[in-house]
Amino acid sequence: MCELLGMSANVPTDIVFSFTGLMQRGGRTGPHRDGWGIAFYEGRGLRLFQDPAASSESEVARLVQRYPIKSQTVIGHIRQANVGKVSLANTHPFVRELWGRNWCFAHNGQLADFQPAPGFYRAVGDTDSETAFCDLLNRVRLAFPEPVPVEQLLPVLVDSCAGYRGHGVFNCLLSDGDWLFSFCSSKLACITRRAPFGAAQLKDAELTVDFHAETTPTDVVTVLATEALTANEPWTLYQPGEWRLWRGGECLAEGRATRAPA
Amino acid sequence: MCELLGMSANVPTDIVFSFTGLMQRGGRTGPHRDGWGIAFYEGRGLRLFQDPAASSESEVARLVQRYPIKSQTVIGHIRQANVGKVSLANTHPFVRELWGRNWCFAHNGQLADFQPAPGFYRAVGDTDSETAFCDLLNRVRLAFPEPVPVEQLLPVLVDSCAGYRGHGVFNCLLSDGDWLFSFCSSKLACITRRAPFGAAQLKDAELTVDFHAETTPTDVVTVLATEALTANEPWTLYQPGEWRLWRGGECLAEGRATRAPA
Repeated sequence: MCELLGMSANVPTDIVFSFTGLMQRGGRTGPHRDGWGIAFYEGRGLRLFQDPAASSESEVARLVQRYPIKSQTVIGHIRQANVGKVSLANTHPFVRELWGRNWCFAHNGQLADFQPAPGFYRAVGDTDSETAFCDLLNRVRLAFPEPVPVEQLLPVLVDSCAGYRGHGVFNCLLSDGDWLFSFCSSKLACITRRAPFGAAQLKDAELTVDFHAETTPTDVVTVLATEALTANEPWTLYQPGEWRLWRGGECLAEGRATRAPA
Repeated sequence: MCELLGMSANVPTDIVFSFTGLMQRGGRTGPHRDGWGIAFYEGRGLRLFQDPAASSESEVARLVQRYPIKSQTVIGHIRQANVGKVSLANTHPFVRELWGRNWCFAHNGQLADFQPAPGFYRAVGDTDSETAFCDLLNRVRLAFPEPVPVEQLLPVLVDSCAGYRGHGVFNCLLSDGDWLFSFCSSKLACITRRAPFGAAQLKDAELTVDFHAETTPTDVVTVLATEALTANEPWTLYQPGEWRLWRGGECLAEGRATRAPA
């Protein structure tokens, strides 16, 4: 199993606090020693840092913590390998271009008996996660060769994820840099922070941040994670099959998929 | 205009020395202040560091210099913007997946009246360089929907580059992680280092490296750059229209394209 981290905000926001908590789980407070990655959208560009080494010992992870990058949409992941060897090519998040945008994806879980029809997008590594991401993009492109608004896209995303869930565990985060889609098969939590901001205490490291001092009153910042990252805030737990679509920190749409047959 | 940096080696090799020279040209000894990027293949994975800030002042560039990454194939670029604003999405090198491999591309030059037919791959940013890269991949995929050996691919690469050259200046580096293709429209230089290794003196920074101490007798390392990076070595200058295909530091094939009509 792995851990996911996501952020959607209405202003460029520094995710160092949440990232610091997550990184501890990469070999220190958690067993996820097989790599980590984090992707920050910057306009239409995407800044990706990855390392197949344990995050708690990674030089690149220390850079990310030292050098705060502000972004409105972030997807991060730490990995405990189950399918696919430990290598850079198997390290989440995965990125592909579709419709002239960078699409970014990370997955928590594992799939069995999953051999989708080959399509345009193909996995570079050998994880079930990247295979599912490529299949999802192939389905999107088949349904919509030209760009459509995300509302029109949603049924394809939800149906695809529900189908993957029929093969095992499929919690995922997906973004095109504009919106952030989240799907829960077994475990996912979220919190939306907005004024009045308070202080938050990380569960995995001795660190407290006073968001009041770091934000303006109109900021809206949603953080998503496999498990709550802070000890003193009321995180919302997704139910199995639940999905939410975020943009600018706000939930645009939500629903619950019925379980698809395997 | 921009500057290119490439490396092809038969063993994982540290490119910090050449990168240090190139980075000086990003705002210090050269005018290329509008971003830089460098991509290192690691197996089938690709490690990409980029920054729209001048390389001589970039925190991420300092990380790359402090933290030597060894690779057999590297593509780097520093940018002086002419087409497309300064942003991460417009920063080379560009990456796309084709046939389940990461293809990486950087370009020096500029193209005029260049509006290729739309295809599957589309530019995320607004540079002529990324547009040409997408067009090149669209041509490859049209000619070969399934993977072919690079020897079979070469005519498509050479003809496409010769065509782009008809629109202006088109020096480029392209790799799928296995081979490195280089095309010269106006300016490109290379050097192959092998035993007996000597010392090299950077032109752009006060730095000398003794490759003898850093290598084994069987190492073969080719470095490509817009202009010679060292003062005391015999670099080979490409002629306009010349191309070379490298793998493991050795030149697999070379030739010269005739000028295609614009």
